[in-house]
Amino acid sequence: MTRGATRRKRGGGRAGAAARRGSAVIEQMPWRIPVNIDRPVEPLDGEGVQAIHEGAMRILEEIGVVFLNAEALGILREAGCSVQGDVVRMGRDFVMEMVGKAPSQFTLTPRNPDRQLPVGGNNMLFGNVSSPPNYWDMEIGKKVSGTREQCRNLLKLTQYFNCIHFAGGYPVEPVDIHASVRHLDVLYDKLTLSDKVMHAYSLGKERVEDVMEMVRIAGGLSDEEFEATPRMYTNINSTSPLKHDHPMIDGCLRLARRGQAIVVTPFTLAGAMAPVTMAGAVAQSLAEALCAIALFQYVRPGIPCVIGTFTSNVDMKSGAPAFGTPEYMRSTQMTGQMARFYGLPMRSSGVCAANVPDGQAMWETSNSLWAAVQSGTNMVYHAAGWLEGGLIASPEKFIMDCEILQHIQRYMEPSVTATTPEDIALEAISEVGNDGHFFGIQHTQDRYSTAFYQPYLSDWRNFEAWEEAGAVWTAERAHHMFKEIIGAFEAPPMDAGIREELSDFVARRKTEGGAPTDF
Amino acid sequence: MTRGATRRKRGGGRAGAAARRGSAVIEQMPWRIPVNIDRPVEPLDGEGVQAIHEGAMRILEEIGVVFLNAEALGILREAGCSVQGDVVRMGRDFVMEMVGKAPSQFTLTPRNPDRQLPVGGNNMLFGNVSSPPNYWDMEIGKKVSGTREQCRNLLKLTQYFNCIHFAGGYPVEPVDIHASVRHLDVLYDKLTLSDKVMHAYSLGKERVEDVMEMVRIAGGLSDEEFEATPRMYTNINSTSPLKHDHPMIDGCLRLARRGQAIVVTPFTLAGAMAPVTMAGAVAQSLAEALCAIALFQYVRPGIPCVIGTFTSNVDMKSGAPAFGTPEYMRSTQMTGQMARFYGLPMRSSGVCAANVPDGQAMWETSNSLWAAVQSGTNMVYHAAGWLEGGLIASPEKFIMDCEILQHIQRYMEPSVTATTPEDIALEAISEVGNDGHFFGIQHTQDRYSTAFYQPYLSDWRNFEAWEEAGAVWTAERAHHMFKEIIGAFEAPPMDAGIREELSDFVARRKTEGGAPTDF
Repeated sequence: MTRGATRRKRGGGRAGAAARRGSAVIEQMPWRIPVNIDRPVEPLDGEGVQAIHEGAMRILEEIGVVFLNAEALGILREAGCSVQGDVVRMGRDFVMEMVGKAPSQFTLTPRNPDRQLPVGGNNMLFGNVSSPPNYWDMEIGKKVSGTREQCRNLLKLTQYFNCIHFAGGYPVEPVDIHASVRHLDVLYDKLTLSDKVMHAYSLGKERVEDVMEMVRIAGGLSDEEFEATPRMYTNINSTSPLKHDHPMIDGCLRLARRGQAIVVTPFTLAGAMAPVTMAGAVAQSLAEALCAIALFQYVRPGIPCVIGTFTSNVDMKSGAPAFGTPEYMRSTQMTGQMARFYGLPMRSSGVCAANVPDGQAMWETSNSLWAAVQSGTNMVYHAAGWLEGGLIASPEKFIMDCEILQHIQRYMEPSVTATTPEDIALEAISEVGNDGHFFGIQHTQDRYSTAFYQPYLSDWRNFEAWEEAGAVWTAERAHHMFKEIIGAFEAPPMDAGIREELSDFVARRKTEGGAPTDF
Repeated sequence: MTRGATRRKRGGGRAGAAARRGSAVIEQMPWRIPVNIDRPVEPLDGEGVQAIHEGAMRILEEIGVVFLNAEALGILREAGCSVQGDVVRMGRDFVMEMVGKAPSQFTLTPRNPDRQLPVGGNNMLFGNVSSPPNYWDMEIGKKVSGTREQCRNLLKLTQYFNCIHFAGGYPVEPVDIHASVRHLDVLYDKLTLSDKVMHAYSLGKERVEDVMEMVRIAGGLSDEEFEATPRMYTNINSTSPLKHDHPMIDGCLRLARRGQAIVVTPFTLAGAMAPVTMAGAVAQSLAEALCAIALFQYVRPGIPCVIGTFTSNVDMKSGAPAFGTPEYMRSTQMTGQMARFYGLPMRSSGVCAANVPDGQAMWETSNSLWAAVQSGTNMVYHAAGWLEGGLIASPEKFIMDCEILQHIQRYMEPSVTATTPEDIALEAISEVGNDGHFFGIQHTQDRYSTAFYQPYLSDWRNFEAWEEAGAVWTAERAHHMFKEIIGAFEAPPMDAGIREELSDFVARRKTEGGAPTDF
């Protein structure tokens, strides 16, 4: 197509372990857990925090939340909650006591222990786009239903990029695989293409149990070892307003009982499934999340739970969801304050409404990713690859987003703002004086190779050099890079016996029919 | 070209005064002074602030700064500074005493007093791109030298967008006008096409005096009225490392003596004109700015001065300047801490290295604009329209950037995060219950028209509707909008007598030869 689109690796000295294994198409930053060293942005004062807390508690006490799950209703009745039909009302003392049992920090340990993730505190983790039914790339040039091959390619990007810490749901829904066995094929792909932390959809007993079993097998673990510490997680959405559906609660209970982690993320679009006011939408979101977390803590005290936010707003003219807006940023920051108030790790997202990886996509995504930073988010879902409000996955967008994730990773390095005498550099300034240049001096030579962020996708050449190289806009550069990364991809090592065991498991479960598809 | 590119106005109820005067191609936010309600991001602790301050003071005391301006050397000698040749060393007591005379807040009053700007405090003001020698738009499709027509069009955008508060330097250098009279023609264009705060280049006595005279005439002011309060400003760069050139100091002294405002912005690219370490580059930048501000305060105590930052880094592989990087963000935040330490209003910028208004342009620009927010910047230069490290002005980029500026304006509205009982909306949540929808209820109907940010350029339609409308990417949408805005532009009113006086002044000064061009 065009020349010079991909900025080639520059020797690989700073590349991570994965890159050094031969797939160093680009020079990227090493695998690292970014530690958020910024004080969070806190739009709420103490009274504001109390007002939202009071709102969430009164929703739970006075209005109640529907649990479409008989087991959960029984448990909550036993716990002393008011259960009328499927509406559960719970007192704030119970909610706060249960939520208080959840750890503020925990670890997730995937099959490669070097990829262990500390969730909570000031740690910031990024995951790939999850669950779009559709796919777009520059070669196809239109929106198409997802396939297994596209899903596999996006999983390869998930594994390839060091700035991606965990695998979310399917990076695109492979609708060419029958729904009854889709989870088996995709989990096989995920576990063989990636050694990062895995996710299970809470979409029915069989899917949840199969995924836990496959993660156990991939890790070479006994049941006891699997259950001894969180190895994986699920993420559920409530059905706003104020309802939890059967399979989500069921899946979480299954994970909780085996010691695995749970992320509860209401999807409260202000003006649609939540009040038109952001504080109201946040209060409702918190209520929906906290009642589920209270249930899981009652069942299994201390089980790791993360409180998620997906509070944005709809366009009141069209009803279309909006993402990465000022309201989205503020509600994410407000939820961050509340997550710290409740002592829970937090999840938010990298999102946009744009349909293609253009300027709008990047300002909306930048807004959402920096809001994740500002809110003290611990797990950033959909951090790479999301378009059209989550209905499209795009490999170009994935690669563009990872450049921003690397910005954040670099931004958090304390060395950038260090102020030792060597950093203030008086001697260097004196040496150069009023007429010189810093390029050639020893102070610069000692530091130049690691002094600054090195992009893999941004093109910093001047216009003429960029034009001479084909005048390639960002999205097209990302497309070329995508092709090269996929072409050079090498899967992480896996013991042959374990691979066979996984393969056998998939074959057996397919013979058994997989999961029912009638719910 | 394509259908439906521009999102038409929706009735204009929220449009500003300018829009209501008949040029309401889009529905934009009203003219407003955003007040930054966020606590700044402060990467430096108290020791870090002291270390950078100490570094800046020792640079001024021990290394010294060259002033290539005999008048300044004489003044500083008189003030007790050490002057050896053209190198000036000044003690920290003198620097701090002089800097302490500068106001922490002041106003700039243009010919339309409704456009008065409060500079300092938590106020955040945005200006257009300034001084690129080149121009790019999607129709031309290549980088070309700037012309008067392009300059006029960008000035129209400067006036049209309510989120742009002040005019910077020429939004593109009109090289089709001879340099000797360029300032006369462009200032005539600026003053007749815009009623916002004006800027003068400090590039020689004639230019500076002519611009001050034209701003005075445009405002219908006597000399006394002009000098009674700041009506305009200049912005100068030092010649890093550690040098101030003649015309910049000369221009500032001229403005200072007539009570006008001064922005001093060193351009310290770490690794080139400044140390490779960000703290060193910031310390040097501060030293360069503070010594000039000390001079101006000695000459005219209390004259409004703004401390600017343009600290970024070069790509150590190519020497190309980088913008909107993690290092840029952190150095801007650090400078913000130091500006507050010195009690001075601060200027930073909206910048990118990208050559076209694509994804890279928007993530780099987003990084820089949010860094302006995080640093507590008061004046944001180049906030709309900048490409290729400032070498290209682009109308598409201008219109794209203004969407981000509106995001910031909306983000700062306290109503977004209000937590009154009406905002928490318990009654609305109770009314909708577990099965309803908030769209139709009274709580929503009472608020829907102003509840959320309304973009003018972001396209929130789903993929199918967007595709049906021509599948137009952001930059091309912005191009169509540019054409429509220019086509519908109406200049702000100006008294016919004043216009004639301005015109006569330009004609007379052209007859006199304008400004010398041999320096």
